[in-house]
Amino acid sequence: MPSYTAPTKDMQFILHEMLKVSQSDVPGYDELEPEFTSAVLEEAGKISSEVLHPLNVVGDTQGCTLENGVVRTPEGFKAAFDQMRDGGWPGLDMPEEFGGQNMPYVLNTAVGEMFSSSNQAFTMYQGLTHGAASAILAHGSDQQKATYLPKMVSCEWTGTMNLTESHCGTDLGLMRTKADPQDDGSYKITGQKIFISSGEHDMADNIIHLVLAKIAGGPEGIKGVSLFIVPKFLVNEDGSLGARNGVACGNIEEKMGIHGNSTCVMNYDGATGYLLGEEHKGMRAMFTMMNEARLGVGMQGLAQAEIAYQNALFYAKDRLQGRDVTGAKNPDGPADPLIVHPDIRRSLMDQKSFAEGARAFILWGASMIDSAHRKGDKDADGLVSLLTPVIKGFLTDQGYDMTVQAQQVYGGHGYIEEWGMSQFTRDARIAMIYEGANGVQALDLVGRKLAQDGGKHVMAFFEMVKSFAKENAGKDEAFDRDFLEPLKSASKDLQAAGMYFMQQGVKNPNNALAGSYDFMHMFGHVCLGLVWAQMALAARAALDAGTQDPTFYETKLATGRYYMARRLPATKMHLARIESGADPVMTLDAANF
Amino acid sequence: MPSYTAPTKDMQFILHEMLKVSQSDVPGYDELEPEFTSAVLEEAGKISSEVLHPLNVVGDTQGCTLENGVVRTPEGFKAAFDQMRDGGWPGLDMPEEFGGQNMPYVLNTAVGEMFSSSNQAFTMYQGLTHGAASAILAHGSDQQKATYLPKMVSCEWTGTMNLTESHCGTDLGLMRTKADPQDDGSYKITGQKIFISSGEHDMADNIIHLVLAKIAGGPEGIKGVSLFIVPKFLVNEDGSLGARNGVACGNIEEKMGIHGNSTCVMNYDGATGYLLGEEHKGMRAMFTMMNEARLGVGMQGLAQAEIAYQNALFYAKDRLQGRDVTGAKNPDGPADPLIVHPDIRRSLMDQKSFAEGARAFILWGASMIDSAHRKGDKDADGLVSLLTPVIKGFLTDQGYDMTVQAQQVYGGHGYIEEWGMSQFTRDARIAMIYEGANGVQALDLVGRKLAQDGGKHVMAFFEMVKSFAKENAGKDEAFDRDFLEPLKSASKDLQAAGMYFMQQGVKNPNNALAGSYDFMHMFGHVCLGLVWAQMALAARAALDAGTQDPTFYETKLATGRYYMARRLPATKMHLARIESGADPVMTLDAANF
Repeated sequence: MPSYTAPTKDMQFILHEMLKVSQSDVPGYDELEPEFTSAVLEEAGKISSEVLHPLNVVGDTQGCTLENGVVRTPEGFKAAFDQMRDGGWPGLDMPEEFGGQNMPYVLNTAVGEMFSSSNQAFTMYQGLTHGAASAILAHGSDQQKATYLPKMVSCEWTGTMNLTESHCGTDLGLMRTKADPQDDGSYKITGQKIFISSGEHDMADNIIHLVLAKIAGGPEGIKGVSLFIVPKFLVNEDGSLGARNGVACGNIEEKMGIHGNSTCVMNYDGATGYLLGEEHKGMRAMFTMMNEARLGVGMQGLAQAEIAYQNALFYAKDRLQGRDVTGAKNPDGPADPLIVHPDIRRSLMDQKSFAEGARAFILWGASMIDSAHRKGDKDADGLVSLLTPVIKGFLTDQGYDMTVQAQQVYGGHGYIEEWGMSQFTRDARIAMIYEGANGVQALDLVGRKLAQDGGKHVMAFFEMVKSFAKENAGKDEAFDRDFLEPLKSASKDLQAAGMYFMQQGVKNPNNALAGSYDFMHMFGHVCLGLVWAQMALAARAALDAGTQDPTFYETKLATGRYYMARRLPATKMHLARIESGADPVMTLDAANF
Repeated sequence: MPSYTAPTKDMQFILHEMLKVSQSDVPGYDELEPEFTSAVLEEAGKISSEVLHPLNVVGDTQGCTLENGVVRTPEGFKAAFDQMRDGGWPGLDMPEEFGGQNMPYVLNTAVGEMFSSSNQAFTMYQGLTHGAASAILAHGSDQQKATYLPKMVSCEWTGTMNLTESHCGTDLGLMRTKADPQDDGSYKITGQKIFISSGEHDMADNIIHLVLAKIAGGPEGIKGVSLFIVPKFLVNEDGSLGARNGVACGNIEEKMGIHGNSTCVMNYDGATGYLLGEEHKGMRAMFTMMNEARLGVGMQGLAQAEIAYQNALFYAKDRLQGRDVTGAKNPDGPADPLIVHPDIRRSLMDQKSFAEGARAFILWGASMIDSAHRKGDKDADGLVSLLTPVIKGFLTDQGYDMTVQAQQVYGGHGYIEEWGMSQFTRDARIAMIYEGANGVQALDLVGRKLAQDGGKHVMAFFEMVKSFAKENAGKDEAFDRDFLEPLKSASKDLQAAGMYFMQQGVKNPNNALAGSYDFMHMFGHVCLGLVWAQMALAARAALDAGTQDPTFYETKLATGRYYMARRLPATKMHLARIESGADPVMTLDAANF
């Protein structure tokens, strides 16, 4: 049975020593004093370890069941959901006027990592609700907000997002679900949606579905798609629940993982729906939440890597097998613990340096979203928009790989379900797919984001790395050698790739697109290199100031050095691949594969 | 529902145009004329597609069940096993005197790939039998051979290998299972073994367990381990089955994949066992089969990558989603097929170039095993022994990654079980673990094999690459540029890594061991680069000779160019990691992770 310990100390380090949130001028950040964030994080960590995590294996084993249209969630989920609701966790970063606590997104993200680590399938019920509520908040009428938000912010009602149909996932222009306008201003929604997470369940009185559909007579393709609110139970004017709406769960999918979350086929049979935002502007309404949603999925990659690492580490210290080649470390025992073996350490350091770097990257990203939303900072908005596909694609790919590495530490015990390591990989796998498959993230990055606003944001990124290096060079030889030099070299590789795309992409866009996946990974490594250098500076500062806890900061430095020395050189490989251009990729006729 | 088409054409190309088997002087290879191997491969392909593959999903869904000590295999497994037996497939490469057909191992390996692709869990029942029979063949007395081999070669009886105990996997010296000598020369075996593939089932009249155990009073640790034959039913002198032996399945494991194979906890309770080979030489007896067994597992990595690729390709051609950025390819349809998108092609080319390269690498390895066994070729034996951990570790890691990539092509449809893509990744995952986890392979490669016989075999490998490049340079500019130059560059990286190990490993062995995993992958890439260059030469030769099928050979060349341009540059990354040495890996105290 695996265990989970919330990494609150590391989060505090990132928030206060690297990002220095409480010194920021972003409105609301002044509340984020170390004592306050510590109290919130500890409390969230407690509920994660004690309430959510014990249900993780239960959810995987029992899954959800559908009988006569009713979906039952695994044993204990409902009681835990009540507890989350009672604790006010779902509304942590939601506006006070709808019952939320108006905390910055950066804090919500740190809390979300713990919930996700301890039980991803469970946390998705409130995660989807958060997404749907955010859409109503951004695009709803006052009446819609008043009707739905208070109940959704508290998670008395939950929410869903209905995009995919069986024949269209990424290419939503092919959508067939129809919306027929009614005389009273509402619409009748008819069609079938698939892969609807939390689509139907027994943990809330009502479920508010946000559904993409085409209004009859509207433009063809993606430009004719609108967004609708379709409640499971219609809501009376006094806020009480009315008749059951014409929407039902037709099936729940058998999946590789996240068994505790009900992934539903949803059938809309003339269901009453209400337009959310403008006609034919459904995609735009979805896109306003995209940065947050994708950052949230990137966070899931980290979250599963973190818990998998914690349990791999436990096993590596506990399991006795073989001897240290440089001399026994446990001479009185029958063998040394696994952790003495260099290749086990290599794997653990891969995992540790990824998890800590990814956490810093995500919290930095979340702080930019705060800056954009709370301060109207357009540069932050542009930069986080550029980095969003990197956060989503790179962190979920790497996060998955780390769960596989963690599973590997267990040998055969990692393959059987008993130890729980298999679940981490099976759950982590979905994050590479949903909210835009990672190939689509790479396309978004290279095909859209690089050139956005005349390439301003990517240039700003390189400028930021450059000035960071300049400002901090020459003060500490070890820092220059171990952090700045590798960062500069990796950043140079990334720039060379960008230059290749500019020069060769003009001749043939496939010269850029064929390298998009490598570019996304390269970019991710450079970002992790940057945040590691920033964390190293913060750690140095603490050591120089005579910290009471030198081991923590020295460990931080050593972990960072590992990332720079052992992970960052991946940029060399990616650059070589990119510079081979489109020809090797595109040359075969489809028929000759 | 996925499908499987046996890649017999590609196998024929490798056997006859790259390896030129029927021109070899290895005894028995003269029988391997193209018409003959084609007939065997086609027949094996047929049974794979038509009999084994339809049971793959059945096995995954139903799994095995244990009731009152009886293990039931999934529906249809028994009938299919009968069919395999009737076709004589289990004994294809076994000696004629025991009912086999004495075919070379290289042919058996090609056939095994198809069986494994179409149903890995099922094929393991005969795979384990083959391993156990090989051990008896190599170490058994005449009486033991006569008693067990005819039935095992035909698979009337199946076999198992019992190594692991709950507290020891890799470190078998910690073993607790005891063997008490009896007056009649037999032993009483007592202990518990875990993770015993095919340990108990309903498809054979008897199961012959090979069990590692310690004879009371023998040396401590690994030097006191002996190997025993422990039949489920004792065998009377006339060959008929006698009393049930004191061995029983205590439990079957819930696993991530290969559900169709029963992974058993086996309890030995004073079971009658017969010493196989010499007292206290159990490990040596196991090791004689190691090269074959590990090559067989490496082949499983290829096998799952192959079938996953086939189904990803089908979907990429079939699924309409989005448009080619350079202009619609299916203008009359609602969208273009996925395969028009550069990143989908990148993924497909990764998979295709891996599968074809891995197949060539494995068949080359199998031909060296034939050369060693049939011709007593010591150089071949040394080389294949060096390459065995590479075949096992590299091909199963990469094979797994390819199944993940194939699954990704399906988007959300890859995550649900309905399409079968999840099973390929879940089944492929075990190959990275069993038969020595891949970290142990890396340790074997760097800690043992590199220095074996004074480093003779690794030097022979580099010499081989060098003379290959020399012999074939300067004849064809495109071949030099696209194949030889990348091969030479990657081989140089590998040599630099080997040199680093030699120089720095003397100071501290961890400088070598901390880079062992990267070295294993680097070596794998160089081997695939080498076989791709060899295949390219063969393809060029066919084109020059005016082949009737130029498309096949041009596709082969294009696929090889992809591997050289896009996959081989990984050696640069691995070298940089290796040259960072042990310090980043080893610096943290275990307590500070």
